[in-house]
Amino acid sequence: MAASAGPEIERLISLLSRLPGLGPRSARRAALTLLKRREQLMTPLAEALADAAAKVRACNTCGALDTRDPCTVCSDGSRDAGLICVVEEAGALWALERAGAFRGRYHVLGGLLSALDGVGPDDLRITGLLARVAAGGVREVILALPATVDGQTTAHYLAERLSGGGAEVTLLARGVPVGGELDWLDDGTLTQALRARRPA
Amino acid sequence: MAASAGPEIERLISLLSRLPGLGPRSARRAALTLLKRREQLMTPLAEALADAAAKVRACNTCGALDTRDPCTVCSDGSRDAGLICVVEEAGALWALERAGAFRGRYHVLGGLLSALDGVGPDDLRITGLLARVAAGGVREVILALPATVDGQTTAHYLAERLSGGGAEVTLLARGVPVGGELDWLDDGTLTQALRARRPA
Repeated sequence: MAASAGPEIERLISLLSRLPGLGPRSARRAALTLLKRREQLMTPLAEALADAAAKVRACNTCGALDTRDPCTVCSDGSRDAGLICVVEEAGALWALERAGAFRGRYHVLGGLLSALDGVGPDDLRITGLLARVAAGGVREVILALPATVDGQTTAHYLAERLSGGGAEVTLLARGVPVGGELDWLDDGTLTQALRARRPA
Repeated sequence: MAASAGPEIERLISLLSRLPGLGPRSARRAALTLLKRREQLMTPLAEALADAAAKVRACNTCGALDTRDPCTVCSDGSRDAGLICVVEEAGALWALERAGAFRGRYHVLGGLLSALDGVGPDDLRITGLLARVAAGGVREVILALPATVDGQTTAHYLAERLSGGGAEVTLLARGVPVGGELDWLDDGTLTQALRARRPA
């Protein structure tokens, strides 16, 4: 902490250090940058935080974070409502949107099933997903969940719950990432990439 | 950026990504964390930023950032006013205070002389330092500046300006850092550590 600099700075540093990616040291550096660039950065950031805190909410349909409800994706008529991509968090949705490879709708679970963390089906936005599929018109549900134990457990659970609901359930492909050097890949990825090999 | 999430989130991410230590990717992750922990983190951070922006200012005597002016250090009568430690930025002052090894006063330059960045003596808090020394009562000025080209140029310049002013001018020691493995140290540090060797 910044000894002898007043409680306001201490509090700012301690809050900044709770952001992912910022430890105590980088939080101090960030606080210093903010204090040096008060007009251009500190006050605008304070306002942006207050503004987003007040206006951003989870979409009632898909759970995405947006200032609109239904969110921008859900209210975009040009997007395919027959395709639902299920993601863990809004961060994954943002990543897929940046890639620009998906033109369907989303469903944000708000987490993953985890026995260890005590997260059960009722803690996630699963009922809403089942209701969307049951309402009809959904051809395919893509489970775009992380390739971790919790991600795969959740995908397995969702695939079971969704089976027989009329929509095809698919998973993301596994394999060598773009730019991936074979030397640096873990054994699991290599094994899966080999198993799922395809004609050249 | 977070496509289709509303301009408020975009703006928040873009401001967060201007903090040192946060790139575009970690700024998005930070924004997501903030939005998920609105009550506990986002609103308090907005308030802390606004609060610090309004209250924190540079001490008129030493340039330290504080809500008090004169700052906590300058107004602490138990600290030795005969010792002035000159630092580049408030961050260095905080680091020295954390170490708890210094019980004198400080002088924050607000930067370093840099021909490349066009920073001259008038851009730094140098007149104030000379005035403090000229006012008398200062036995020693410790130039605790970084061991970089700009840091050393500034130290050299200050040593010249301060010479004959009645105060001794000293520099931080150079050598092997605590925990420093010799294999990993750069040649410059090794050379200086060897040159400044002392009896065991």
